[in-house]
Amino acid sequence: MTVTLPGPTLGVVGGGQLGRMLAEAAAPLGVEVIVLDPTPRCPASVVARDQIVGEFDDRDAIDELATVSDVLTYEIELADPDVLESVAAKHDIPVNPDPKTLRTIQDKLVQKEALADAGIPVPEFIGIGGEKDLKLVVEELDGVMLKAREGGYDGRGNTPVHEPSEAAAALDELGVDTMAESFVPFEREVSVIGVKGADGVATYPVTETIHADEILRASVSPARSDDAVLDRARDVATEVLDFLDGWGAYGIELFETKKGEILVNEIAPRPHNSGHWTIEGSRTSQFENHVRAVLGWPLGPTELREPTVSANILGDVDEPAEATLYNVDRVLDASNAHLHWYGKTQVRPLRKMGHVTVTDPAAGEGDAVDDALVERAESLRDELTFVDVTADQSRSASQQ
Amino acid sequence: MTVTLPGPTLGVVGGGQLGRMLAEAAAPLGVEVIVLDPTPRCPASVVARDQIVGEFDDRDAIDELATVSDVLTYEIELADPDVLESVAAKHDIPVNPDPKTLRTIQDKLVQKEALADAGIPVPEFIGIGGEKDLKLVVEELDGVMLKAREGGYDGRGNTPVHEPSEAAAALDELGVDTMAESFVPFEREVSVIGVKGADGVATYPVTETIHADEILRASVSPARSDDAVLDRARDVATEVLDFLDGWGAYGIELFETKKGEILVNEIAPRPHNSGHWTIEGSRTSQFENHVRAVLGWPLGPTELREPTVSANILGDVDEPAEATLYNVDRVLDASNAHLHWYGKTQVRPLRKMGHVTVTDPAAGEGDAVDDALVERAESLRDELTFVDVTADQSRSASQQ
Repeated sequence: MTVTLPGPTLGVVGGGQLGRMLAEAAAPLGVEVIVLDPTPRCPASVVARDQIVGEFDDRDAIDELATVSDVLTYEIELADPDVLESVAAKHDIPVNPDPKTLRTIQDKLVQKEALADAGIPVPEFIGIGGEKDLKLVVEELDGVMLKAREGGYDGRGNTPVHEPSEAAAALDELGVDTMAESFVPFEREVSVIGVKGADGVATYPVTETIHADEILRASVSPARSDDAVLDRARDVATEVLDFLDGWGAYGIELFETKKGEILVNEIAPRPHNSGHWTIEGSRTSQFENHVRAVLGWPLGPTELREPTVSANILGDVDEPAEATLYNVDRVLDASNAHLHWYGKTQVRPLRKMGHVTVTDPAAGEGDAVDDALVERAESLRDELTFVDVTADQSRSASQQ
Repeated sequence: MTVTLPGPTLGVVGGGQLGRMLAEAAAPLGVEVIVLDPTPRCPASVVARDQIVGEFDDRDAIDELATVSDVLTYEIELADPDVLESVAAKHDIPVNPDPKTLRTIQDKLVQKEALADAGIPVPEFIGIGGEKDLKLVVEELDGVMLKAREGGYDGRGNTPVHEPSEAAAALDELGVDTMAESFVPFEREVSVIGVKGADGVATYPVTETIHADEILRASVSPARSDDAVLDRARDVATEVLDFLDGWGAYGIELFETKKGEILVNEIAPRPHNSGHWTIEGSRTSQFENHVRAVLGWPLGPTELREPTVSANILGDVDEPAEATLYNVDRVLDASNAHLHWYGKTQVRPLRKMGHVTVTDPAAGEGDAVDDALVERAESLRDELTFVDVTADQSRSASQQ
């Protein structure tokens, strides 16, 4: 293919941190980004050329976005595949990844069925018809993870059910359309960022994902698994990419079982939190490769540059508040530490507000992650807080 | 110092490629950028939060910029130090680097006098009063580089005068206020990006700068000089930083003479073309460090990450035209090659339109640049062209 610059304008449904980092990566490539997001002055709007204010499924707004874009993509699963499909067809422009893929992925039951049908290893799963049904499944599988079929993220929409007696409350919490998955006795959770482009697929080195309360806290790349497991994870991710329709970067979340098997947990049809480390840690970031992929441009190399750990900065507050992050100088002062702020003006409990990435300059491409690097990233991140430390200090000073 | 986020809003006079790359670097730090530039939809405007359209010395426009900014800086020497000083004072906000420094640097004769007074090694220089004066100087120094005292860049404003008989024409070309410098018999030209911040100064590894027609074509980092010369260059750059007032990144252009001496050629009070390699090749880019410095934040590490070569993409056209850059896929397809497009819609002869950076992943921090890396960067850059290759191909096809 022939690529010329100035490049196409990319219309992105969603303008959160993923849209923001997408716009940061698009600019050097000469690709201008316009985002659609319901929140005026959304995180991505500051870096994007423009923002259209509208809901993710607002046909008129998406039509307006398509009018000023050469290619459409999305950074959030709440995008509406039907609207995207018809608007793109009306304007005769591509939308990537294919809305078909979004439709499949949006419904977790449909996603799992499709993966299983394609021969891709997944945990045991079943659609839940109601309370009676769930109770039987809980009994049979000795407890399950109950999941809302649509709309969940960052642990919302998932709830563990250990006993039949918990079934009613769990269904109340998640609503009607649910599915259940057997608990996977995993050694660790890992993830592979995969990219599918015009000329084929590529995978990034496997990332170890450290969760708490089902929210990602830190990403360790490469994962501290043995080589055979890492190879298997990339093989499974490649199978997943072959199965998916449409170009783009995908976050492929996996379980590494106690036996060293790899099972697919969930797929995100977009750049993924577990791939933020690629900005400093790999040869081409997941965001740059998403831009390249959705435009049909050649993909960039996905090799590790150095062992890398990213740690999420989450809202450590009890109530929503205007966001002020303290102790930022601790990260700025640290060597080989990189700050990424998402531009959200309000902090909420456990809301993703930014991340810190540290790389290990003493190590090279082929090297494993030193545990000290993980501790360093997490302790740097832990120094950051939205709780007013200056007020605390002056209070304690005045109390003395 | 205590740094909190969201960070301050940075007002930047000038919105060309330097402002654009500054905005790209500011976003992850949570710093929003507003640029002032006379050209609507200037290169930086796409990535910046906003643009104010106005001349670089338009007091009202700069006043408007100051109203929405917490700190002012500039990315172009055409900024007006008097206006910056008085507007910043009126709004009680900092402007960095200090307008005093800009004033000194803007006038090349004043700059050289100040450097010489500070004991910093510079080539022989002298202010020129008129044609008769110039003729004598040309005779005495056996030819000189005649320089307009103000406003020159990219070779404009400089003209060599080898014979007294060329004096009149040279003065006609450059105008009234000029200075002359002896030709330095240099081994190579090198440059050091220096940063001055609240807590001290830092220098990047020395860059070898390859010019043609006085326009920078490629930057090779680290420079292919011996270690003693590299040390001397960083020492001289540190002396320069000590002499300058105000925080920010500075481009310090140097001559390495045949005898291995270091002389200061020129200083730019802003990120510099010879430091674009730092985006991929060092631990903190010159743009990120400029943002950190002007805000009074801690500086990031300036270590080399890998040997790196950047090559400028210049307008290879005879006449101004709407810009279309062809063969971009050649760079996208190459491994360890990074594209930077500046977003200019019009190409002009030798206009800086973008750059290509290549790094050497096989080498590490301490390693020298392999000559093959330089050739690779230049040959990749040479594949790019603003001349319509598709038209040529179809023409030659139709002629067969």
